[in-house]
Amino acid sequence: MVPTVEWKNGAVRLLDQSKLPGSIEFLDCRDYQTVADAIRTLKVRGAPAIGVTAAMGVALGAEKIDASDYPTFSRAVLKICDELAATRPTAVNLFWAIERMRQKLESLRDYPIPFIKNALIDESQVILEEDIALCKTMGRHGAELIHDGETVLTHCNAGSLATAGYGTALGVIRAAWEQGKKINVIADETRPVLQGSRLTAWELMQDKIPVTLITDNMAGSLMRQGRIHLCVVGADRIAANGDVANKIGTYSVAVLARAHNIPFYVAAPYSTIDLKTKSGDEIPIEQRNALEVTTIHGSHPVAPKDVAVYNPAFDVTPAELITGIITERGVFKPDELAAQFRS
Amino acid sequence: MVPTVEWKNGAVRLLDQSKLPGSIEFLDCRDYQTVADAIRTLKVRGAPAIGVTAAMGVALGAEKIDASDYPTFSRAVLKICDELAATRPTAVNLFWAIERMRQKLESLRDYPIPFIKNALIDESQVILEEDIALCKTMGRHGAELIHDGETVLTHCNAGSLATAGYGTALGVIRAAWEQGKKINVIADETRPVLQGSRLTAWELMQDKIPVTLITDNMAGSLMRQGRIHLCVVGADRIAANGDVANKIGTYSVAVLARAHNIPFYVAAPYSTIDLKTKSGDEIPIEQRNALEVTTIHGSHPVAPKDVAVYNPAFDVTPAELITGIITERGVFKPDELAAQFRS
Repeated sequence: MVPTVEWKNGAVRLLDQSKLPGSIEFLDCRDYQTVADAIRTLKVRGAPAIGVTAAMGVALGAEKIDASDYPTFSRAVLKICDELAATRPTAVNLFWAIERMRQKLESLRDYPIPFIKNALIDESQVILEEDIALCKTMGRHGAELIHDGETVLTHCNAGSLATAGYGTALGVIRAAWEQGKKINVIADETRPVLQGSRLTAWELMQDKIPVTLITDNMAGSLMRQGRIHLCVVGADRIAANGDVANKIGTYSVAVLARAHNIPFYVAAPYSTIDLKTKSGDEIPIEQRNALEVTTIHGSHPVAPKDVAVYNPAFDVTPAELITGIITERGVFKPDELAAQFRS
Repeated sequence: MVPTVEWKNGAVRLLDQSKLPGSIEFLDCRDYQTVADAIRTLKVRGAPAIGVTAAMGVALGAEKIDASDYPTFSRAVLKICDELAATRPTAVNLFWAIERMRQKLESLRDYPIPFIKNALIDESQVILEEDIALCKTMGRHGAELIHDGETVLTHCNAGSLATAGYGTALGVIRAAWEQGKKINVIADETRPVLQGSRLTAWELMQDKIPVTLITDNMAGSLMRQGRIHLCVVGADRIAANGDVANKIGTYSVAVLARAHNIPFYVAAPYSTIDLKTKSGDEIPIEQRNALEVTTIHGSHPVAPKDVAVYNPAFDVTPAELITGIITERGVFKPDELAAQFRS
């Protein structure tokens, strides 16, 4: 599997996901502004992946700062942190990862600048490795919920490409598959940016896990025919009450799953859980450019020019529609989550 | 408004809907095979529109038959009828219109061939004019259900372009607008063929009716926010028990509407009601080419090559999710329909 993001020869190397599945291209970011731009333009996406990428962006930016005293250095790093945090508003992993870098910086205030620079690079690597380990543990817990012969629906891409590797929702699917269970995956294409068709289908095909692609509006019909046994999706932010913000369309899948008595699971690591946000109503929902809806890939028009468009990137699924949240500590009811993760 | 289909200079002139909204192009069909192909390839689509078009196709084909006795002529016309009926399986208006042409043919068996040929052309014009009149009557009945200031969600295109003119679901919206009600329309883009973005948004913008385009997976989120007051869609076939086959995704809209206590209406003329089909389970659902899902307009790829795809063109919404069916005779509960239309 191609790495989503890695530190390579002093640059942050990203697999350019906006080019998938047509071509596999890498972007070597040599300054933090390029990292910020890659996050903003969805060259890298997925809550855990943008967290890891932003952490590396902080380390990359810090490395190039020309300062000999801690206050000057620190001010410059914090400015970089602020710029990277402003790239996207919904996924809390972004803020969590940047905050972790800030804390590392502050904890090292009495050390020489070159030492801090190296420590920040190291910390971003720890975040990356931890993310992969968390996904694998989540996968083990979640795989118990999928039985041999079942068909799993997933929405958007919560896979290897949405994380540092292995994936959250797709990590659960991958773990079940690795246990030898014969499963099938239904991938919602996930308009407007088509992460389901471009990324999830591609990723599963690479691993030879059986996948069938549908348009988002076909899920209900398949559920009514009894052809979907459970749903597993990722998350961009989970509020203290268990409400989940995730890719637009997740809420519809959850309502449909409930109407057909199909279990609906969310898979996410602790960095996605935001206990400071009381409920989903408080989660800021990013509104994106109309061109994502009116064109394909920004160039191929599919709607009248100048049509009014509503394009929220996320929606909120209330806790009561969620069967369980799969984390690295086990599977919990949404209302049990806060007690488990209150540090 | 540009006519969807018309008899012009001895040809069936179609507005090529596969080119909209990018360009307004007409296709002059000079033989019935071209008409059949236009139906198959969605150059004309929408249940009432394909009924009218097929009727004209029969008349066009009949006109070119070189026969001097009724049995030879009739055999040739019936063969054309069979070919046109084989173009698409779900919309019953297609079979209804062809059956009407067959009956006209049989009723004239004692007349000279040139007279029958003219009568078949006339009958196709009557079907066209009747379709427009039915839509306007439906519009008047349905408009009562939409109140000033409300926002209406519609799926696919059940507009002027889906009929000989004025539209079924959009006819209802158009009538409410013409009554001076300040309404807003939310148009689902309707993947995979994008009839919502390409046709409905375009058609409403031509009439200056306020429309906002969304991807199909955004409807649930808007409903949860209280931003949709009612749903109106068209139909491709209504079974005797009130189950409705319509564009894929309609069922999901109906489930979502029910979950949010939003009224869900279907607008369709009598030719869509198929009392011979007892329930929705008996309605054949057309499966279409995977390229509709994996590419845009057959050429622009949006998914991995060779991915498995499920691509049903329609789904069935059970009667219990439908608030009312708007017809030219008034608005009925789905289970009242059979009694009203049993001839």
